[in-house]
Amino acid sequence: MAQFENVTVIKKANVYYDGKVTSRTVLFQDGSKKTLGILMPGQYDFGTDEKEIMEILDGEMLVKLPGQDSWKEIKGGQSFEVPAKSRFQMDVKKISDYCCSYIA
Amino acid sequence: MAQFENVTVIKKANVYYDGKVTSRTVLFQDGSKKTLGILMPGQYDFGTDEKEIMEILDGEMLVKLPGQDSWKEIKGGQSFEVPAKSRFQMDVKKISDYCCSYIA
Repeated sequence: MAQFENVTVIKKANVYYDGKVTSRTVLFQDGSKKTLGILMPGQYDFGTDEKEIMEILDGEMLVKLPGQDSWKEIKGGQSFEVPAKSRFQMDVKKISDYCCSYIA
Repeated sequence: MAQFENVTVIKKANVYYDGKVTSRTVLFQDGSKKTLGILMPGQYDFGTDEKEIMEILDGEMLVKLPGQDSWKEIKGGQSFEVPAKSRFQMDVKKISDYCCSYIA
């Protein structure tokens, strides 16, 4: 899907890591939520509340998922899933454009 | 307005200056368009097609508008207008969150 229709967008950005990670929140009519964001190159550690599906639209990174010892390479066009109530690490190699879906 | 309702959001980001300037496009039912973006610190030169109203939601920058010799300081909560078919320069001092309205 190239665009989201009939949605609500929160005007103000979500800003993390001094702006190296930013996103906008998109709310859907069914009550679900996604964020559309940008990851600048760098190393990040994030925690989840709900389960998340991270779709990488463009870019390149290494990801360490909860319970994994090794890093997995993820490029534009690929996705990864992070369980609820867990932590994951990203080592972003090239600026990455993402869509994160929160699964209640 | 803290959020935009019943809009269409283009999923993929607009990326300029190696990702130091990024935005998402929001389309309104009346046919109008805005972008919600992030400016990382740095110096940028942009051209306009339509007239633009740049609302700085958060951040700090110097702006040089077309036909002006001097730079004007703009902070979060302030806006500036750029005529159609012109160029303007920004010297972004602190990461800035903006909403740009395109006036046909």
